[in-house]
Amino acid sequence: MNGDEGFVEEELLKRVPRWRNYLAAKLGFRNHWYPVRFSRDVPENVVLAVKLLGENILLKRVNGTVYGIKDRCIHRGVRFSHKIECYTRDTITCWYHGFTYKWDSGVLCDVIASPDTPIIGKRKVKSYPVREAKGLIFVFVGDDDFPVPDLSLDVPPMLLDEDMYVQGSSYPVKANWRLGCENGIDPLHIYIHRESRLVPNTQRSIPLGHRVNPHGGDNRILEEEEGKPKGVRSAEFREGQVSAYVPLYEGRVQGQVVVTSTKMHTTPEEAKFKRTTGDFIVLPGALRVDNFPYHGLYQFEWYVPVTEDSHLYIITIGKRCADEAERAEYDHAFWHRWKPESLEGFNNDDITAREALQPFYSKDRNWLEENLVREDQSIVKWREVCHRHARGIQLPKHVDP
Amino acid sequence: MNGDEGFVEEELLKRVPRWRNYLAAKLGFRNHWYPVRFSRDVPENVVLAVKLLGENILLKRVNGTVYGIKDRCIHRGVRFSHKIECYTRDTITCWYHGFTYKWDSGVLCDVIASPDTPIIGKRKVKSYPVREAKGLIFVFVGDDDFPVPDLSLDVPPMLLDEDMYVQGSSYPVKANWRLGCENGIDPLHIYIHRESRLVPNTQRSIPLGHRVNPHGGDNRILEEEEGKPKGVRSAEFREGQVSAYVPLYEGRVQGQVVVTSTKMHTTPEEAKFKRTTGDFIVLPGALRVDNFPYHGLYQFEWYVPVTEDSHLYIITIGKRCADEAERAEYDHAFWHRWKPESLEGFNNDDITAREALQPFYSKDRNWLEENLVREDQSIVKWREVCHRHARGIQLPKHVDP
Amino acid sequence: MNGDEGFVEEELLKRVPRWRNYLAAKLGFRNHWYPVRFSRDVPENVVLAVKLLGENILLKRVNGTVYGIKDRCIHRGVRFSHKIECYTRDTITCWYHGFTYKWDSGVLCDVIASPDTPIIGKRKVKSYPVREAKGLIFVFVGDDDFPVPDLSLDVPPMLLDEDMYVQGSSYPVKANWRLGCENGIDPLHIYIHRESRLVPNTQRSIPLGHRVNPHGGDNRILEEEEGKPKGVRSAEFREGQVSAYVPLYEGRVQGQVVVTSTKMHTTPEEAKFKRTTGDFIVLPGALRVDNFPYHGLYQFEWYVPVTEDSHLYIITIGKRCADEAERAEYDHAFWHRWKPESLEGFNNDDITAREALQPFYSKDRNWLEENLVREDQSIVKWREVCHRHARGIQLPKHVDP
Repeated sequence: MNGDEGFVEEELLKRVPRWRNYLAAKLGFRNHWYPVRFSRDVPENVVLAVKLLGENILLKRVNGTVYGIKDRCIHRGVRFSHKIECYTRDTITCWYHGFTYKWDSGVLCDVIASPDTPIIGKRKVKSYPVREAKGLIFVFVGDDDFPVPDLSLDVPPMLLDEDMYVQGSSYPVKANWRLGCENGIDPLHIYIHRESRLVPNTQRSIPLGHRVNPHGGDNRILEEEEGKPKGVRSAEFREGQVSAYVPLYEGRVQGQVVVTSTKMHTTPEEAKFKRTTGDFIVLPGALRVDNFPYHGLYQFEWYVPVTEDSHLYIITIGKRCADEAERAEYDHAFWHRWKPESLEGFNNDDITAREALQPFYSKDRNWLEENLVREDQSIVKWREVCHRHARGIQLPKHVDP
Repeated sequence: MNGDEGFVEEELLKRVPRWRNYLAAKLGFRNHWYPVRFSRDVPENVVLAVKLLGENILLKRVNGTVYGIKDRCIHRGVRFSHKIECYTRDTITCWYHGFTYKWDSGVLCDVIASPDTPIIGKRKVKSYPVREAKGLIFVFVGDDDFPVPDLSLDVPPMLLDEDMYVQGSSYPVKANWRLGCENGIDPLHIYIHRESRLVPNTQRSIPLGHRVNPHGGDNRILEEEEGKPKGVRSAEFREGQVSAYVPLYEGRVQGQVVVTSTKMHTTPEEAKFKRTTGDFIVLPGALRVDNFPYHGLYQFEWYVPVTEDSHLYIITIGKRCADEAERAEYDHAFWHRWKPESLEGFNNDDITAREALQPFYSKDRNWLEENLVREDQSIVKWREVCHRHARGIQLPKHVDP
Repeated sequence: MNGDEGFVEEELLKRVPRWRNYLAAKLGFRNHWYPVRFSRDVPENVVLAVKLLGENILLKRVNGTVYGIKDRCIHRGVRFSHKIECYTRDTITCWYHGFTYKWDSGVLCDVIASPDTPIIGKRKVKSYPVREAKGLIFVFVGDDDFPVPDLSLDVPPMLLDEDMYVQGSSYPVKANWRLGCENGIDPLHIYIHRESRLVPNTQRSIPLGHRVNPHGGDNRILEEEEGKPKGVRSAEFREGQVSAYVPLYEGRVQGQVVVTSTKMHTTPEEAKFKRTTGDFIVLPGALRVDNFPYHGLYQFEWYVPVTEDSHLYIITIGKRCADEAERAEYDHAFWHRWKPESLEGFNNDDITAREALQPFYSKDRNWLEENLVREDQSIVKWREVCHRHARGIQLPKHVDP
């Protein structure tokens, strides 16, 4: 595809006026912050090539600070990463004709093969704003003239709290990023986790689904306040709220119980302690799940667009730690318990589900052929919030060949 | 391709008004019966996934009857076959959210994760009419509101005769289904079979081609009578008809004999016995060849559309059998002689030829660039009969991603 | 792609009026001579299949003369090369129905399976003009009614000189043919060759690039004279001309020397002897480099379009030889020194560079996104000369499936 027309057909977009921008955002939302790798992946002086929203980006840490530039020489379009040449710490030189750029600004500072070239100092390769927080490297993929917003507007609340200590890992997924989001907040998909080894490991109950509580209120709250992250969260966060749903531990077909899941026997006091997890998803596609995988832990996860057909699933688990000793203890728990038991013993089922959704949703037209049920309102609300608050749509013209 | 426009360009279709529907039917004709597997492939309780005219279909035998449903949950489009869950004999449950459907009707009877879902009992997954005959499973691929015709209208005459006993096998071919049909009825393609091991094995003559008999009449009869299968057959079926062609056993280039084929010496009486084979092709693409591979046998074969680029070649050989002993004797002959010697020692050359045709005919435009000769009138007549009697065209909108 | 519209978008072509035909010629220029293989590759009676400008062509040497025909039967489009049948020396027979053609004219002379076919002697398969020169087989890819020009108009001057003795080899490259041309004449790309093993092997200096000589004139001469090859050559061919450029052996980044290349110490007399190489590129994409890889040698090389994404890089090195003894001596030098040291120890870096250019330039739109510098005027002039003198554009309609 050379241009932008026909990326998602106008005829389809018109049919979903309330979430048009979401349907259009096959490649993600432009002018947002995305985590792209862990800080540990970019030690000093290493050059790392990543793909983000279809753009090829090079990262390098220079004197502690990570910089990002487009992985494409402005001269004739070859990729620097074809053969990395960094003659000095703060520059990168194109292997083909010696065009040399500054890491911090992208400015063309020398052309080795032709030092008298008049455009030296006047042209630049695109550079990307980069921030590090909580052991993650965030990159802002946006237009050059777009005012870069604060990172805190694009991550779930609590992540940046000073005492929140985070560890994580990332997994490539062969599915569009929106299927990651929608699987993450799908209230019914718990059915696929019924045999997860996380359940016995954490002495927790895991329902198969739920029945409707006739006294329950709306269980999804829109967060659209100016100056804060925009998103959708579950109402369970509020004290005293009656849940809209009653968890279900027996599955029936034509009246007969055919499948059961694990229900721990708990006292009312324990039940209060083992409160239902809550979730909060914010633009551009970051979810916080409270009290998961265990009471007192917070799962923060991202569905980072890579191509139209793939995303990077970054999963982190945070814990409030007061000091180095607590952090060290949590490090051990994360790497030896939560990574194998939860990331790879529970969320791996989510990866499978998203990849199974991909063939259907890869045809744009099929987004209008789904048959959503009442519980999927959480997904519909998410789409609508995205439509209203996305800062831009990534288009083929932004994407590298 | 998201829509239907441009599937086959209108500009090309306009140029073949007499067989327009045939050129358009890259994916097959809709609202017809197709054999898809042998009965032996679907024992009780086995769930089998097949692709037919681009549609993914699941088959299951329940209490002896085979049912077919679309392999795609109505909720969010995942395939049931990703992970088959049949909690009861007559239902199938989607692995993702527990949507459960009845095999016999496709009706949604339960949603395990949300038993109060209002659409239970009101929505259904597409179900396909299925018939079994002569050891084959036939599926009707059509519109829900299309009156299902009798199977006998879509198979060659004689197949369903009570004493016709049939055995067969199937072979995947990387070529469009129409190239299967056209190779099957091509009067000149006999040239490729000249070294087939079937020929010495059956003491038969096999010509290289033919010369024109100036006293011969038209050798193709159109069958378009109301209430009967529609198709084209060779005139050799009629007694007393003078053949249009004289078989040729020596091939010449610039006057010199360069290649010969096998001609048995026969008395006139034997010659009458070893009459030329006759053929009869009917919509939607099923051929009967009489007295082939041997006197008294009937080859029935189908070119079943799978994708635009592939078909399933189902070859069966029928014999009229009066009782179980005759059937047992024929079973032995089929599996030990005709399958290796004919299906795999003769028709395998046809598979090779069709796959060699595919690159040229995969470009729609090239259907107008061929240079057909007089003998190819059998093919042209077949295209025209298809144009007049096809009940519908399979389009991309019918196809699963 | 079925038709020609949209091959290269009109909207893009309009934006480069001075080299529109060059941008359009993704598949090469039609009605030109191209070398396709070496004479040694086609001994008597061998049939060789090649692809040239997207067309599948068969070559056969009959009684010393090489003939070329389209590798596609006119009847139903299958390729002869699927199973070659040459019953007589000067004919080829299609394996499917016995259509038989003459190698020298392409005329259909027999149909083995139907000797009475009326089109015998009246129809033909496309035949291609073929010439052999300097151990290369040249094929003219053009329209049937286009007057075939003399081969000398499509090769660099000197190649066909009687005493010019040529040896060579060919290499497939996964890049468009135009990227081959542009790399070949790029004055700055010398930077990539700085570590080539050819340099120490030939006691030569190799600069990294150059500084501008303020007294230098224009260094590119357009050759557009009627009745001669059309192209662009470097001005160094003329005696007494002041070079526009001063070679540079030290590369600097921000003022510091970061890379150096090899500079031999030479007396002024030696310097005159070791004159700078000159180059001369002509349509349809053939380059001569004088005094390369050594004084007194002439490199002739071609970038022969195969598909949109690939070309055949034919490299030859010529030497003026007076007699058989000199030719034998040069044979030894070519195969034991120049092929390993220069073709595979220097030009292999050019292959790598072209393949690195391909992703960017494979998007037609990106031809308008490059940032050419002053030295790239040689490339721009080449594009413009091609625009003015190309005899035709190869289009998808000319290409075999």
